[in-house]
Amino acid sequence: MVLLKSLGVVGALIMSLTTVAEGLDKLTVSQANTLISRALDSRVGYDIINSLTTEVGPRLAGSEAEARARDWAVAKFKALGFKNVRVEPFLVDYWERHVESAEIVRPFPQKLRVTTLGGSVATKPAGVRGQIVRFASLQALIDAPMTGLAGKIVFVDEHMTRTQDGSGYRVAVRKRSGAANEAGKRGAIAALIRSVGTDQHRFPHTGQMNYAGQVRKVPIAALSAPDADQLQRALLLGEVEVKLSLEVESMGPRLSGNVIGEIPGKTDEIVVIGGHLDSWDLGTGAVDDGAGIGITLGAAKMILDLNRKPQRTIRVVMFGSEEVGLVGAKAYAEGHKDELYRHVIGAESDFGGGKIWRFDTLFGEDKLHFAAAMHAVLGPLGIALGNNSASGGPDMGPMRALGVPVATLKQNGWDYFDLHHTANDTFDKIKPDDIAQNVAAYAAFAWMAANLDGHFRASQD
Amino acid sequence: MVLLKSLGVVGALIMSLTTVAEGLDKLTVSQANTLISRALDSRVGYDIINSLTTEVGPRLAGSEAEARARDWAVAKFKALGFKNVRVEPFLVDYWERHVESAEIVRPFPQKLRVTTLGGSVATKPAGVRGQIVRFASLQALIDAPMTGLAGKIVFVDEHMTRTQDGSGYRVAVRKRSGAANEAGKRGAIAALIRSVGTDQHRFPHTGQMNYAGQVRKVPIAALSAPDADQLQRALLLGEVEVKLSLEVESMGPRLSGNVIGEIPGKTDEIVVIGGHLDSWDLGTGAVDDGAGIGITLGAAKMILDLNRKPQRTIRVVMFGSEEVGLVGAKAYAEGHKDELYRHVIGAESDFGGGKIWRFDTLFGEDKLHFAAAMHAVLGPLGIALGNNSASGGPDMGPMRALGVPVATLKQNGWDYFDLHHTANDTFDKIKPDDIAQNVAAYAAFAWMAANLDGHFRASQD
Repeated sequence: MVLLKSLGVVGALIMSLTTVAEGLDKLTVSQANTLISRALDSRVGYDIINSLTTEVGPRLAGSEAEARARDWAVAKFKALGFKNVRVEPFLVDYWERHVESAEIVRPFPQKLRVTTLGGSVATKPAGVRGQIVRFASLQALIDAPMTGLAGKIVFVDEHMTRTQDGSGYRVAVRKRSGAANEAGKRGAIAALIRSVGTDQHRFPHTGQMNYAGQVRKVPIAALSAPDADQLQRALLLGEVEVKLSLEVESMGPRLSGNVIGEIPGKTDEIVVIGGHLDSWDLGTGAVDDGAGIGITLGAAKMILDLNRKPQRTIRVVMFGSEEVGLVGAKAYAEGHKDELYRHVIGAESDFGGGKIWRFDTLFGEDKLHFAAAMHAVLGPLGIALGNNSASGGPDMGPMRALGVPVATLKQNGWDYFDLHHTANDTFDKIKPDDIAQNVAAYAAFAWMAANLDGHFRASQD
Repeated sequence: MVLLKSLGVVGALIMSLTTVAEGLDKLTVSQANTLISRALDSRVGYDIINSLTTEVGPRLAGSEAEARARDWAVAKFKALGFKNVRVEPFLVDYWERHVESAEIVRPFPQKLRVTTLGGSVATKPAGVRGQIVRFASLQALIDAPMTGLAGKIVFVDEHMTRTQDGSGYRVAVRKRSGAANEAGKRGAIAALIRSVGTDQHRFPHTGQMNYAGQVRKVPIAALSAPDADQLQRALLLGEVEVKLSLEVESMGPRLSGNVIGEIPGKTDEIVVIGGHLDSWDLGTGAVDDGAGIGITLGAAKMILDLNRKPQRTIRVVMFGSEEVGLVGAKAYAEGHKDELYRHVIGAESDFGGGKIWRFDTLFGEDKLHFAAAMHAVLGPLGIALGNNSASGGPDMGPMRALGVPVATLKQNGWDYFDLHHTANDTFDKIKPDDIAQNVAAYAAFAWMAANLDGHFRASQD
């Protein structure tokens, strides 16, 4: 009995050092747990977000500020000890906001708080003035007759539902382009929408819109929720006339770029993590997406500090010009298309600073045991194993479409759309403990992905 | 025993109909309780706030919008059935905000959200530009040497403490005038303060400031809390230069006025309740002080609907130009000085829309039994009996100084300074149930004060 027991211990020890269980050896799992425990005690991610949002501030795609953000990123990568640091430049159509205002001129003169949606045309210099026609939803506008809106200002008052997983956004965001395009078709002179957001503060939410092919382009702006309420209350009392002045400008192609830094691996395979470096112009882009930059760069820094070369290269990509149409993500996928087969997995953090609560994947169906193995390590952070239809984050979209497996370390987005694309998206909203949990999860995830014995693509791929 | 018991019941009945206990007869108490129960079921106060903030919106002292608010008030008083409705006009120095902006120009160019304090001088048209010198408190600036600030921009970064009773405001508000005056003495070119407020949103809080006699006038603006944080973070990294452009204008005397409506009593004595009609220009003045207007006018409307003539006249005063220095309150006290002796008591509602939690008085020490008697009715609303050093509300100040007894139906101000003097002070922040509790308390209070057999002044007065 004593002998057998001793033999059992030795046997277990041999197992723990050598056996590959679900692709992860014990050492990798142990290192992942070390990363988690160190990350939870660290402020590295929080400090990076602080640095970016303070030392650069807002960084609109294509702007001089985004160029400063690239300089910041190169310097930060180098200071932290990353290798192969470089900027991969591309061009983006630059659009800029100058001055914007709105007011009820009749019957109750008062200002309304609006912000122009990205990509919108300007109003004429003196502004446009017209009667408001309200639609409770985009669908109601789509269903409206083609006549009766000429010379009017369309107001799409659709509300957004608060959800943990962000699903309310996918529904509500359609009106950003839809309201302008449907208004344009019907001869309206402008469009207003209730902001795509969930807060009840007087911050309008900006965001990109796109004109449909042949449609007449009408200017479009978002009202803050209290202003949309106010306009609705005024409309209950009769006709309302609004004046809208949106001085914005499309200024042609400008330089943008993705900034890359690496922890070189022993093989030429690549694990990609990252966030996007650009932000909207109104806030300092702390939750969108300073958080993603801090989380993923912080996680990679924790890995660097292990002082162990991973099997696969861990590549941190700070995408440029995400907000205006995933321009950096498309440039990356195009520029790296010949090596995408060596991209083992990708995951972007671009959903704010809330805690991760679910681990979703997009792996080959025969590779889901790797998801389970990785989840066994991530689970104690309060993370559930989710589904196998992960997006991987917006900037992973173009790579994902080309077959790169992705994972989503899904954050709690309950409050995300309170701040998203507003002036109120500032560093004070970042919670250090939540960021530390994210850094811990990304560090463990990236380390495991980089050292896992196996691939996430389906075997037949 | 049976006989004795019957006699006892009859005796109690006689007592209840005729005996004056602490100045309040049973009928008045019963009517006060009826008012409370009806008010708690009513939306009258809420609807008035809606009407004022929607149909007028912001109403800066002396502005055309404040004139529209007076028209609204006269029409509303009349529509509700009040008597002796009139405007008592006076002049106010009119100050107006045009355009304002601030930005860090060095080392991290980015915009800051500011608002000019009321009464501030403008910057020169091109703005002023200078190095920031931060003081953690107004006292630190007061204690600073008289040299070393020439050509600089002073930044007073003092925080405000959140309190239920608003006591944090009295401390924090000193910097509104103090920062400019101390900066002016020391040759600084401008002053910035962290907003006098308790929120962490990107709304700067405005509010009136006054220059001390012979001090050089420097322009002053408030930063939102996140912007003050940002400036502080930037300063931790080195010298910071800010450009400030405040286009504001003092435009000389303009017409303002108090609007008055009454429920005439059987005697010439007067009970005054009210709020202030003006608001700052940034929000629609829902909590400051649409709430006070709705609460007190709503309460008086509940009394009107009793269809019983009170002993004393109940006068509702909507004061004009409160925000810029109690101008309407001073005009009222001056204009009515010969009849102030007939003003039995006054109470203003000007602390937002939160529930009333305490009943404070300023009565003769020998009249505190009346406070106890009234409190016996108010208590079930969740209202404690407080102290005998009530302010009566800002606009009661000038009357109080001339000996008019006052009461404060003290509201929960925990969240009040999140919204106070910001663009975010809008109708959606008003909670119907909280307003109903206020209306109930004011209705009962005013009814009891109007029918109480006795006076609140000390007997020796």
